[in-house]
Amino acid sequence: MRRLLLAAAVSLGLISSAHAVEGMWQPAQLPGIAATLKQHGLKLAPNTLADLTAYPLGAIVSLGGCTASFVSPEGLTVSNHHCVYGALQLNSTPENNLIDKGFLAKTKAEELSAGPSARIFVTEEIRDVTKDINAKLNDKMSGAERYKAIEQAIKQQVKDCESEGYRCDVYTFHGGYSYQLIKQLEIKDVRLVYAPPQSIGKFGGDVDNWMWPRHTGDFGYFRAYVSKDGKSAAFSKDNVPYRPKHVLKVNAKGVEAGDYVMVTGYPGRTNRYRLAGEVQSAIDYTYPTQIGIYQDTLDIINTAGKADPKVAVKYASMVAGLNNYLKNFGGQLEGLRRADAVEVKRAQEAQLEAWLKQQGGTENTALAADIGKLRAAIAAERDNRDRNLALGLVERSSLFSTAVRLVHLAKERPKADLERDAGYQQRDWVRIEGGLKQLDRRYDAGVDQQLMVYGLTRYVALPQAQRLSALDAWLGGAKTPEQLKAKVAALYAGSQLGKVDQRMKWFAADSQAIAASNDSMLKLANAVQPELQKLEDAQDARAGEMSKLRPRYMQAMIAWKESQGLPVYPDANSSLRVTFGNVQGVAPRDGVSYAPFTTAQGIVEKATGVEPFDAPKAELATIKAKAFGGYASPKLGTLPVNFLADLDITGGNSGSPALDANGQLVGLAFDGNWESVSGDWLFNPQLNRSIQVDVRYMLWVMHQLDHADNLLKEMGVPAK
Amino acid sequence: MRRLLLAAAVSLGLISSAHAVEGMWQPAQLPGIAATLKQHGLKLAPNTLADLTAYPLGAIVSLGGCTASFVSPEGLTVSNHHCVYGALQLNSTPENNLIDKGFLAKTKAEELSAGPSARIFVTEEIRDVTKDINAKLNDKMSGAERYKAIEQAIKQQVKDCESEGYRCDVYTFHGGYSYQLIKQLEIKDVRLVYAPPQSIGKFGGDVDNWMWPRHTGDFGYFRAYVSKDGKSAAFSKDNVPYRPKHVLKVNAKGVEAGDYVMVTGYPGRTNRYRLAGEVQSAIDYTYPTQIGIYQDTLDIINTAGKADPKVAVKYASMVAGLNNYLKNFGGQLEGLRRADAVEVKRAQEAQLEAWLKQQGGTENTALAADIGKLRAAIAAERDNRDRNLALGLVERSSLFSTAVRLVHLAKERPKADLERDAGYQQRDWVRIEGGLKQLDRRYDAGVDQQLMVYGLTRYVALPQAQRLSALDAWLGGAKTPEQLKAKVAALYAGSQLGKVDQRMKWFAADSQAIAASNDSMLKLANAVQPELQKLEDAQDARAGEMSKLRPRYMQAMIAWKESQGLPVYPDANSSLRVTFGNVQGVAPRDGVSYAPFTTAQGIVEKATGVEPFDAPKAELATIKAKAFGGYASPKLGTLPVNFLADLDITGGNSGSPALDANGQLVGLAFDGNWESVSGDWLFNPQLNRSIQVDVRYMLWVMHQLDHADNLLKEMGVPAK
Repeated sequence: MRRLLLAAAVSLGLISSAHAVEGMWQPAQLPGIAATLKQHGLKLAPNTLADLTAYPLGAIVSLGGCTASFVSPEGLTVSNHHCVYGALQLNSTPENNLIDKGFLAKTKAEELSAGPSARIFVTEEIRDVTKDINAKLNDKMSGAERYKAIEQAIKQQVKDCESEGYRCDVYTFHGGYSYQLIKQLEIKDVRLVYAPPQSIGKFGGDVDNWMWPRHTGDFGYFRAYVSKDGKSAAFSKDNVPYRPKHVLKVNAKGVEAGDYVMVTGYPGRTNRYRLAGEVQSAIDYTYPTQIGIYQDTLDIINTAGKADPKVAVKYASMVAGLNNYLKNFGGQLEGLRRADAVEVKRAQEAQLEAWLKQQGGTENTALAADIGKLRAAIAAERDNRDRNLALGLVERSSLFSTAVRLVHLAKERPKADLERDAGYQQRDWVRIEGGLKQLDRRYDAGVDQQLMVYGLTRYVALPQAQRLSALDAWLGGAKTPEQLKAKVAALYAGSQLGKVDQRMKWFAADSQAIAASNDSMLKLANAVQPELQKLEDAQDARAGEMSKLRPRYMQAMIAWKESQGLPVYPDANSSLRVTFGNVQGVAPRDGVSYAPFTTAQGIVEKATGVEPFDAPKAELATIKAKAFGGYASPKLGTLPVNFLADLDITGGNSGSPALDANGQLVGLAFDGNWESVSGDWLFNPQLNRSIQVDVRYMLWVMHQLDHADNLLKEMGVPAK
Repeated sequence: MRRLLLAAAVSLGLISSAHAVEGMWQPAQLPGIAATLKQHGLKLAPNTLADLTAYPLGAIVSLGGCTASFVSPEGLTVSNHHCVYGALQLNSTPENNLIDKGFLAKTKAEELSAGPSARIFVTEEIRDVTKDINAKLNDKMSGAERYKAIEQAIKQQVKDCESEGYRCDVYTFHGGYSYQLIKQLEIKDVRLVYAPPQSIGKFGGDVDNWMWPRHTGDFGYFRAYVSKDGKSAAFSKDNVPYRPKHVLKVNAKGVEAGDYVMVTGYPGRTNRYRLAGEVQSAIDYTYPTQIGIYQDTLDIINTAGKADPKVAVKYASMVAGLNNYLKNFGGQLEGLRRADAVEVKRAQEAQLEAWLKQQGGTENTALAADIGKLRAAIAAERDNRDRNLALGLVERSSLFSTAVRLVHLAKERPKADLERDAGYQQRDWVRIEGGLKQLDRRYDAGVDQQLMVYGLTRYVALPQAQRLSALDAWLGGAKTPEQLKAKVAALYAGSQLGKVDQRMKWFAADSQAIAASNDSMLKLANAVQPELQKLEDAQDARAGEMSKLRPRYMQAMIAWKESQGLPVYPDANSSLRVTFGNVQGVAPRDGVSYAPFTTAQGIVEKATGVEPFDAPKAELATIKAKAFGGYASPKLGTLPVNFLADLDITGGNSGSPALDANGQLVGLAFDGNWESVSGDWLFNPQLNRSIQVDVRYMLWVMHQLDHADNLLKEMGVPAK
């Protein structure tokens, strides 16, 4: 999940490149740009790419946060090493560290469960439900009413759709301009089949994260299992491999520079259609503020970790995440400033508004007015950001946020399921329960208290009008760090929520029982939760207002682009997308060129023997001996490792298959280059590149180093 | 002087590249490789490059540490910005900061003196004096006797050669295999004519130091003045511009990728023919140890500097130097390890010895035996390194080293000049006096004491046998940092050497007076100096021994290479050399290519408005307007800024002219790339590159930004 904050693409007019395509296209949009697809080299009929039940899209699945694809009729899926990492971790012991050693099941019997929460989602149906949702709305609704109505309508759609073994979700496009109901088979028995050692799968580690040149063997394999009658089922020895409708063919010859390539997967979230004011806020406030907070947080955790190695272990994943975000936010800032993103957005908005004015007519005038309202609403959001930030920081106390969640859950449980707040419906309970059970693994009372004190320090600096009376009452005037520390220490001393059995007890309790509790943390949460709820309601009301305005902005944008003959792809929203382009290098700076391919020799160059550059000795020796089997590229004269393409991807695309002109597997997307970090806001086709692991490197590692010939055979790729 | 630790070249057999020439050639060697010169594109007759009194070498001069060249009949010289930096500093005030503003004399009357110690050395004669030196030596001499005899013979040569206004030096080649007496006109009236602002001249600063891509306008102009009768004379209003015999022609069209290019200048020092044991020692001991010491020293100075800004100012130049060396030593280590330098050297030695054995005969057997002795002598040096290091650190106390120098000088002064130790002859006195006078500028008693304590901490850790009895006597058993601190504090409290008048008093005093002094520092120095002298004598004796053995190694090397038809250029020794090759980029790592040229657009890309990336606004606007006059490269379609070539340069080459196939000026060398940092030991023609500022950028800045049209006219380059 580390490299999920990747690149993406928007047509901004300002950027021109003969050879660049931008866009995370909805499959249904592709026939509309068939000529462009052909021009870039696609050989498949563009129409086949619109059909989710046909080859190749029928082979693409979601792991929830990552993408994968079926590569054998027996449910074998391939994804990134960093997407199977959790399963390696789960199955590792200090004596048998699968992360370090890698893992290969030589038979199905040797495969290991990826854990009870591992999932493979197979999309079976997509239906546009825009009309159904909009039928529940009317113009007289307040923001709060509108928000509630949309929420209710979506819940109803989901309820009507879901059945045993299936998960349904309504995806919002263009901020509410349209909605799709997507039905997915939810495979719950996921097993780890193969992963190379992390000295290959994570070669370069955090140092190389978002960097090119790259030499990472970022791939691994799961297998999907279902019950004997073909239905979704939890892990059982009696389960059998799932038989997918479609399986990707592997092109063991790979692609070369200039070749057509496309990536299909589930990109999570982009901000391509944000307004100038929102970009400004990110540059001036969000990123710089978060950078400061993350640095402070790292200081707190690292100091505690130095004093107690056990603490360091518990927070290792959080530290990795914070460092990752720090690097990412730095890249966002650098990229947005270098691109002069605020000015670009401002100019685009001005052009759009000028066009609306030029077109004239009632509707266009109304659209222009709504854009003005959207801009005002965005500006108004600034009033809330300090409080939202401070309260969010206070809730980084795991015990406090746990207590708030327990109070909230107890309030929702008595309601009818459709009436419950999102996130507190019956379908969410297993997840909540799991979180409560596993808290200890990432919890240290000392650090948790320090994080709460840190948040409170920010909270007490808020103006009086932004404060919560219940929180203030509890604070009793405490202000200085010392006073806050004492308050928090007493709070933790009076709570039993650090114990799992206590958490489970309150998970089952009702509101009355909780209100009567002596636990100091539950008491505080019980007192504060109503005010937090009010803030959330206010936030929802504003979101309801936005859900009126943002689709209007997008409606104008789509009309404007249409007038220029340009289709508009929606921002990423975790639904299946296709991005296409060509294998190509990049010139990131004056005087510097990056080749489209890295090669095995680069692994030898980077290898230091020390993590993350600790390539296996056997690999180094095999490279030095130039024993590339039949996997070397004739054009390169050596073994390709990773390659660049001008594709538009972002977090969630991790593990997405890269397909050639015939829709055959030639690699896996796993990262973007440094210049693409800010691509979530603004795609620059001249600088943004996706990074893929080359299929030839995958096959070579599998055959030559790890002897996974059983899998090669299963995938129909004879070893060479 | 910051970028003086540059790249260089040796033929190691292991490295092969069709398109690479290595070598800092003595001009006299060039006719011997005429075919290679022609093959690389030289159009001049190779013989003309052997003649120091002909064009173009007759136009090349030394600034002592930097190289420059005459570019007008009126003594105008061009060199690097960082070579005229001291003159800018000297002439700057807070109100009129020439470093920031740049400087242009529109008439000769406006030119500013570069200071009394600025020099331009014009080589007038080179004579081989190997026979003269060797005539004073015989095989029966001990190391000490040999050392003394060589020193005496050299001094005699210098004495016989020098006359008013001329400086003579004997240069040792191949560690004593041959000697040359070089006679130079010593021009003492040097004036600052022109330098761009440092936002151009030092653009990129320390961040870009040793880096590519580079965008530095590293150039500046001096003018040489002599008395009316054409003789060397100190600064005087009555002096007139020197009229050089040769003046470089400027090729305002510059060179393009692939073109022949050569750099002529005065490279300072390389270690190309060091043995494996010496490289090993550098990797295992010298660089890592120095890195630790420099970091500690920076800690001491930075802590003191934070407490007192005045201290920070005094040590700013030392801090810059330490940081520079830290970066450099890191690069040396990285480069030497990456190149597996010890193994490369070991293999070369083995090949050489195998060849000697294969050749057979008395002389070759003797040579092999001498190489064995050299290797043993090198190994024996390890016994001294801890002591040398510790005493060197103690002598970083400016007061202590000043006292030692005063004691030493007083002992030498009564002797006949030829008998005096090198560095203490009459010709050195002005320099010593200047140093004593200027000490205050870079001296803070607190820091000075801490440095001495730091050195003593290392000294007291030496084994007893390596200690100095006088120093031990003074220490009186002090061992702990606290005890040493107290000792040093008392030492400084009892000394007046921190005062300039006191230093000048003792500069004039004789040994008796010094011995009778009450000054605690002089007392200590007087007690310790005889032992230091003994160590120095022992060191000289070992050097005398080495001066027998190293030439033998080089004799074998030259014979071996000759047998392969390969000429051997000597290690750099500050004498005039020529290196030739072609304009070309480099592929520093798998997947990365660097273009041979950077362009004006890169300045805009790098510009942040903050030093060292604070390119002038006028420059940025002119670039954005693409107002490149006639200076753009038709091939690049824009203005080139810096360019790469596979030339073999090192410290001392700063300011060296880059000449095209016709010997016309096309740029100035000013740095090497990162991969070339370790090139002083081992030149890698595939990775090592020299960095030049392009003549077109120089002319464009002069004409378009700084309006130095008077100089362009003087240089015979019409503005375009």
